[in-house]
Amino acid sequence: MVPSRADESEPSVRDAGKETAKETARLETFVDGVFAIAITLLVLDIRIPEPGEDLVVALARQWPSFVAYVISFLSIGVMWVSHHRLFQMISRITTTFLYLNVLFLLPVAFIPYPTALVAQHFQEPDARTAAVLLYGLVSVLIAVMFNVLWRYATRHRLLSMAPGEALGAVRGYALGPLAYAIATLVVFISPLLSMAGFAGLAVFWMLSGREGAASG
Amino acid sequence: MVPSRADESEPSVRDAGKETAKETARLETFVDGVFAIAITLLVLDIRIPEPGEDLVVALARQWPSFVAYVISFLSIGVMWVSHHRLFQMISRITTTFLYLNVLFLLPVAFIPYPTALVAQHFQEPDARTAAVLLYGLVSVLIAVMFNVLWRYATRHRLLSMAPGEALGAVRGYALGPLAYAIATLVVFISPLLSMAGFAGLAVFWMLSGREGAASG
Amino acid sequence: MVPSRADESEPSVRDAGKETAKETARLETFVDGVFAIAITLLVLDIRIPEPGEDLVVALARQWPSFVAYVISFLSIGVMWVSHHRLFQMISRITTTFLYLNVLFLLPVAFIPYPTALVAQHFQEPDARTAAVLLYGLVSVLIAVMFNVLWRYATRHRLLSMAPGEALGAVRGYALGPLAYAIATLVVFISPLLSMAGFAGLAVFWMLSGREGAASG
Amino acid sequence: MVPSRADESEPSVRDAGKETAKETARLETFVDGVFAIAITLLVLDIRIPEPGEDLVVALARQWPSFVAYVISFLSIGVMWVSHHRLFQMISRITTTFLYLNVLFLLPVAFIPYPTALVAQHFQEPDARTAAVLLYGLVSVLIAVMFNVLWRYATRHRLLSMAPGEALGAVRGYALGPLAYAIATLVVFISPLLSMAGFAGLAVFWMLSGREGAASG
Repeated sequence: MVPSRADESEPSVRDAGKETAKETARLETFVDGVFAIAITLLVLDIRIPEPGEDLVVALARQWPSFVAYVISFLSIGVMWVSHHRLFQMISRITTTFLYLNVLFLLPVAFIPYPTALVAQHFQEPDARTAAVLLYGLVSVLIAVMFNVLWRYATRHRLLSMAPGEALGAVRGYALGPLAYAIATLVVFISPLLSMAGFAGLAVFWMLSGREGAASG
Repeated sequence: MVPSRADESEPSVRDAGKETAKETARLETFVDGVFAIAITLLVLDIRIPEPGEDLVVALARQWPSFVAYVISFLSIGVMWVSHHRLFQMISRITTTFLYLNVLFLLPVAFIPYPTALVAQHFQEPDARTAAVLLYGLVSVLIAVMFNVLWRYATRHRLLSMAPGEALGAVRGYALGPLAYAIATLVVFISPLLSMAGFAGLAVFWMLSGREGAASG
Repeated sequence: MVPSRADESEPSVRDAGKETAKETARLETFVDGVFAIAITLLVLDIRIPEPGEDLVVALARQWPSFVAYVISFLSIGVMWVSHHRLFQMISRITTTFLYLNVLFLLPVAFIPYPTALVAQHFQEPDARTAAVLLYGLVSVLIAVMFNVLWRYATRHRLLSMAPGEALGAVRGYALGPLAYAIATLVVFISPLLSMAGFAGLAVFWMLSGREGAASG
Repeated sequence: MVPSRADESEPSVRDAGKETAKETARLETFVDGVFAIAITLLVLDIRIPEPGEDLVVALARQWPSFVAYVISFLSIGVMWVSHHRLFQMISRITTTFLYLNVLFLLPVAFIPYPTALVAQHFQEPDARTAAVLLYGLVSVLIAVMFNVLWRYATRHRLLSMAPGEALGAVRGYALGPLAYAIATLVVFISPLLSMAGFAGLAVFWMLSGREGAASG
């Protein structure tokens, strides 16, 4: 067999492909780990009533903790599915993209904090607005960072498909920051309505993503 | 070699297969992460006696914490093995199936909370029933969600085998919600008996799953 | 092409091989997750001095917390490496083996609790013995469970090599329960010496495992 | 085909390659798990204001918690990316290397503790210096351990490339311990400047690592 330039380059191309798959896999493991931990830590912030308290009354009184648990759980779940779908289209990564993912995870891993604030301070009229406002600002930041990931990936050709073709899959992402900003501003009308907005957005992404099959 | 329609479609089929394997793997990583964290967080809810307390007496007095730790650990372990066995049969996934898994994980990740309630309130006659009741309701919800996963997977042909053939492997699942509902209702007779029921169910699934080899 | 018995069986054998590799991988992910979380949760049990306390004095006074952190970290690290080496020899798994791994993880995930007991009660003469005794009993239980895993794997031919050949790699395991039992009984002479024993055992496994290459 | 010694050895070499890939993968899963958990536990140390406190005032007063969260998050993120880049060059591992990774993770998993000390004691003039000093010492230890990993890998030929070639990719690592030691010593001039130094180093590694593509 006569070694030609093409023959020589082929194995290295294949190796690079394997390397990239391994790269992407390791980034996904780290990202999935942070998502899985953040979503599971939410439960630690639900207060356990003290011995001596009437348990049923105490649990009923802290209903905002349970509602906040469900809303944050669904929101983190939706973010994870979105990240998952973005990474289905990623065929290679760069060091900058690694760091952008770290920056994306910073507010994601922070979610248990504003969730705890809302849970524990929702029944104080003065604190309620501030707690929900912080919750909303973190949600907006995550939506913005998600778009940063997406834009970087398309501009630096990290995708395995044409950006136009990929666009269909993530059309909703660009609207994320705006939608979360509106739900956040609603806090000045009603903190309860604002939280309902965050819940509604999570359910909306879940239902709107439904028809698309994750594979094939 | 003359490229035929069949030849052209083959690589894409194989690629789709790879894609799906990657998809399933990433969902499994996330699910395994949540299971692993929930099972390991259980230990955080066992109270550490204060300095100055008689340690042996204090530890003996909080025996419900240790019993609840073991029951919840085995229950989550059994759920993980069941999820594992279900996913052995899954050959492709859809976005809806991703979201159904997130909804399945919501009560799984919540388990440390009712576990802590039972652990810390089991010795108060008034609170005991409410704590065990909540523990039971969460268990029922998980069993129901598991059946939702299973039914969705069979109806939308996500399995790599005929549903009839697969049915043998998961015959016990359909009985899960009923069995947990009965163990839950027993709380109105005796909370201790109810907890013994949850322990017994975990041991029963472990022993009944024993004969089947996980692979081959 | 004439289908022969050999032709028919070959793909299924290969598929079974792939299935098993996937099986083992998912069990390892779950086990690694629990180990990683247990080892990282240790830090949560080190008390943060209250505002107003003299920080240097407060930190110096809680030296047992830092010592217990290091001993438990190394011990869990050694267990993880041992599990890792055992699984290098595993070529297939059964459902019973899955459950035995869950039972093995039960005391592993529990380690942060006796570690916190030792850390927070080591300076009380009355509580010290009980705390170190519980720490030792959990260590003995883990060593016993590890031998259960190993014996099950050899008896049910889950290994990819002859048990005799494999034995060399894990010769030290059989001595684990005895070594930890002796270190535990030393608590009745001196709790400090007992903890030194646990530290020494961790360092000993690390040094004695050193010469063997993990691969090749 | 006449079987020659070379022919016979080939499959075993390929098997060893697969074994090693599996080995490295499992070590990476464990390491990634510890990094992901440590980075996500940081949020648990931010104090949630008590009910009744003025929430905005309370949150504003605990600004060091938020700053410490961001600095530690970025620092752990940078360490993870560095470990990631080191492991891209690793082609085989030994048991000693497994244990060195456990020793490397010991101070990494400890980071939430000095972070909490800085967060909760930064506003006490007496405690501030001690808290930042401990934070710095842990950072120096991590940088030293990273160099130990790197030196061991080059000396024991665990790399898939010539050490000289690899050196370019990690040139900055050797300077890590010195840079962190200087930032730590600055605490005796100003604790605030010292923390700014740690923040600056994290941002510097992020920007300086930028140009290199993670793959290809």
